[in-house]
Amino acid sequence: MAEKTKSQIEIGEYFEAHSKRLLEEYFTFLRFPGISADPSHRKDLQATSDWLKTKLDLLGFSVQTWQADQASPVCLFASCLEAGPKAPTILIYNHYDVQPVDPVDLWTSPPFEPELRHGQIYARGAQDNKGQCFYLLTALEALRQRGSYPVNIKLVIEGEEEVGSHGLSQLIPKHLDELKADTLLVLDVGMKSLKEPAITLGVRGVITMDVVCKGSTSDLHSGSHGGIVYNPIHALVEVLSALHDRQGRVTVPGFYDNVVEFSDVEKARLDLSFDEERYFDQIGAKATGGEVEFSPYERAWLRPTLEINGISGGYAGEGFKTVIPSEARAKVSCRLVANQLPGEVAERVSEYLEELAPPGVRLEVDVHPGRGEALMTSPDSVSAQTMKRAYEKVFQKPCRMIMEGGSIPIAAELAKASGAEPVFVGLALPDDHMHAPDEHFGLDRLRLGMELMGVALQLFGEG
Amino acid sequence: MAEKTKSQIEIGEYFEAHSKRLLEEYFTFLRFPGISADPSHRKDLQATSDWLKTKLDLLGFSVQTWQADQASPVCLFASCLEAGPKAPTILIYNHYDVQPVDPVDLWTSPPFEPELRHGQIYARGAQDNKGQCFYLLTALEALRQRGSYPVNIKLVIEGEEEVGSHGLSQLIPKHLDELKADTLLVLDVGMKSLKEPAITLGVRGVITMDVVCKGSTSDLHSGSHGGIVYNPIHALVEVLSALHDRQGRVTVPGFYDNVVEFSDVEKARLDLSFDEERYFDQIGAKATGGEVEFSPYERAWLRPTLEINGISGGYAGEGFKTVIPSEARAKVSCRLVANQLPGEVAERVSEYLEELAPPGVRLEVDVHPGRGEALMTSPDSVSAQTMKRAYEKVFQKPCRMIMEGGSIPIAAELAKASGAEPVFVGLALPDDHMHAPDEHFGLDRLRLGMELMGVALQLFGEG
Repeated sequence: MAEKTKSQIEIGEYFEAHSKRLLEEYFTFLRFPGISADPSHRKDLQATSDWLKTKLDLLGFSVQTWQADQASPVCLFASCLEAGPKAPTILIYNHYDVQPVDPVDLWTSPPFEPELRHGQIYARGAQDNKGQCFYLLTALEALRQRGSYPVNIKLVIEGEEEVGSHGLSQLIPKHLDELKADTLLVLDVGMKSLKEPAITLGVRGVITMDVVCKGSTSDLHSGSHGGIVYNPIHALVEVLSALHDRQGRVTVPGFYDNVVEFSDVEKARLDLSFDEERYFDQIGAKATGGEVEFSPYERAWLRPTLEINGISGGYAGEGFKTVIPSEARAKVSCRLVANQLPGEVAERVSEYLEELAPPGVRLEVDVHPGRGEALMTSPDSVSAQTMKRAYEKVFQKPCRMIMEGGSIPIAAELAKASGAEPVFVGLALPDDHMHAPDEHFGLDRLRLGMELMGVALQLFGEG
Repeated sequence: MAEKTKSQIEIGEYFEAHSKRLLEEYFTFLRFPGISADPSHRKDLQATSDWLKTKLDLLGFSVQTWQADQASPVCLFASCLEAGPKAPTILIYNHYDVQPVDPVDLWTSPPFEPELRHGQIYARGAQDNKGQCFYLLTALEALRQRGSYPVNIKLVIEGEEEVGSHGLSQLIPKHLDELKADTLLVLDVGMKSLKEPAITLGVRGVITMDVVCKGSTSDLHSGSHGGIVYNPIHALVEVLSALHDRQGRVTVPGFYDNVVEFSDVEKARLDLSFDEERYFDQIGAKATGGEVEFSPYERAWLRPTLEINGISGGYAGEGFKTVIPSEARAKVSCRLVANQLPGEVAERVSEYLEELAPPGVRLEVDVHPGRGEALMTSPDSVSAQTMKRAYEKVFQKPCRMIMEGGSIPIAAELAKASGAEPVFVGLALPDDHMHAPDEHFGLDRLRLGMELMGVALQLFGEG
């Protein structure tokens, strides 16, 4: 492992020297209740982006406020190209909006009154994504006070990631020139534990759809009609259960067409190690899902999946009602890998579902317009290799390569538009309570993140 | 068809002569909002039973108010044994409580302000069961003014049929002597249409249960964990879909043990005719459910069924959440026929469900204590044959014999306790909107019902 350089040590020391003020700024950032899912918080999102813009102005950035329409939160585009045309351009993506806070009574301290307890800052957004955004800002500050930035930097910090990035998705085609870059850092992911530093080479794509089985005009009494009509709940469970075989494979014809198979050599470069016991401790369930012929992380990273995310029909309350409902519904999503085409997979799933409907039951599928392709970077790319070196310098141990089973659809759009090699980075950990009550982020990770981003930008500058 | 007798004609004429007052009394009865499912209506149930008691006192009955406990609505037991020990004793069951009225905004007129429109009386309970109870009362009044009753009469009119008859179920063993009778008329059913008069020979039994599939401790992100854990919704749909085969048979081992098979001769005595077109017009669905080797009414009357009455899990609201829920639930009921034992069937279904659970998912079954055995009367019984003659005298056409796929668990308990031969009677029609908004009952049926019950009691008296 390369020893820490003088400048790296100085970036770390900058955090210690200014920790009180930086923590105050972080707390200010966290106090904005910028919940993008709730239209009543539009003014809070505006206040958050105003605060960020001021901060970025001070850091020497030229800041543009992009907006898809008047109702959309602002997307900040900030650039500082002082490193000149010979230096590489690094585009960094993250977001300033946060998830809703319900159920709010499960929070130990109020979600928008940040509190430091045992080295962890508790607040909505503490990690996702204000924490990860904030250590980037402190890294820029530390670099700035040392002189000019070692690379050209472009920042995209949007305000509706938690509701699907629809505004940014519309804005991207209008700003192709501004977005051009060599490397795209998607600063919105994490790793298995702090002891296992890792960059993330890719994310899965996603499609979602609603499925409904319709029978009678209105609900029926299951005594009088049970055995006569085809119960739409029966139809739905039969159709849905036919989507996987006994080996956990998705049975939709053509579902696996175009799926890129990984060679053993390629797999060996990924940290596919899976700790059954730790997983059970974390989530309370065993790794018994998915295709039996693959290991857990192969299933979550390298293989497409089909999951039922919701099901409803009939009476689900206390007690009992002997009803045959007029309809039953399900929500289905597929995670996709390279090189699956979302539209094609959606069509195949829809068609198969419709074929499976039993007589007397109408089955309808509504595929949602929001979707995303899988995105993956070569482990040998400059982006991946440079970030790997940065992690190793900061953590002083080998950096692994992992992937993420979730999806960041906007990343693929940004990668295409910018022409940049993407890589996914960040210091999120599995038990940060992201999207849940008592979300938190460690003071140690604020410091590590600052060092990581500072070192990474320097390394990209060294080429 | 036997011609109408003079006394029969007089009973009919009694209705015409007193129609204004009788309709006023019926409206008074309907105005009590005696919803047994809602504890806030206890006083309304009390007022209803007080009103009924006064009415029965005037009709010469000795009335007892039975109560299982202080919280339970009163069950009225009324008897008039003036016909003497040589005359048969007829026990008649019905109920004075009603269903809830939600969704109340779908009612054309308020549910407890009865309104006569186009010959139909609209109100909650207009048919189920105050209408059927009221024409019995008017029949008794008409018979009474002609002299003494032709048979010994015992009435059980309970106040919690719509919530499972738990009180009456506890009371029955304490009143075995009072309940002794020769015939049990369960006055709570109907027929296919007014043109097809029919008695009902039997009802199916019922068991109900909750099923839950449990996975992780809390909900998971379906991107990160999809393909790793076994989604509890997948487990649930797989388990539930395995409960029927392609021929619509229930696959639970031993489910059909003890089921009484009907011979062609026995089937020929039932009106199993099924009008596909009329059924589709009424409910908007085709008769494509159940066991393919049986006809629709065989499936609903003579065969046991298993229905999923509710299913829930994950996110079911607007939009989409990519969640793998920690659990998924279903409500399952079975309708039983002679001679299935509810406890035994419940155990077999539970055991089979538990066997089917995939690895990594805990499946739990909670069988509900409320249950009922099927009950069926021989078509040759005195009860059935006498009621058949009564229908034929009133309707002046052949009376069919049908069955009911639903369950009236208390009927089997009353039949056992009374030692009486049961038969199910009534003038409900499929489009009465029973349990639904705009429930209604015809003025024509009030008159027919009065004549039917008057003639029936006379025929039972003639032996």
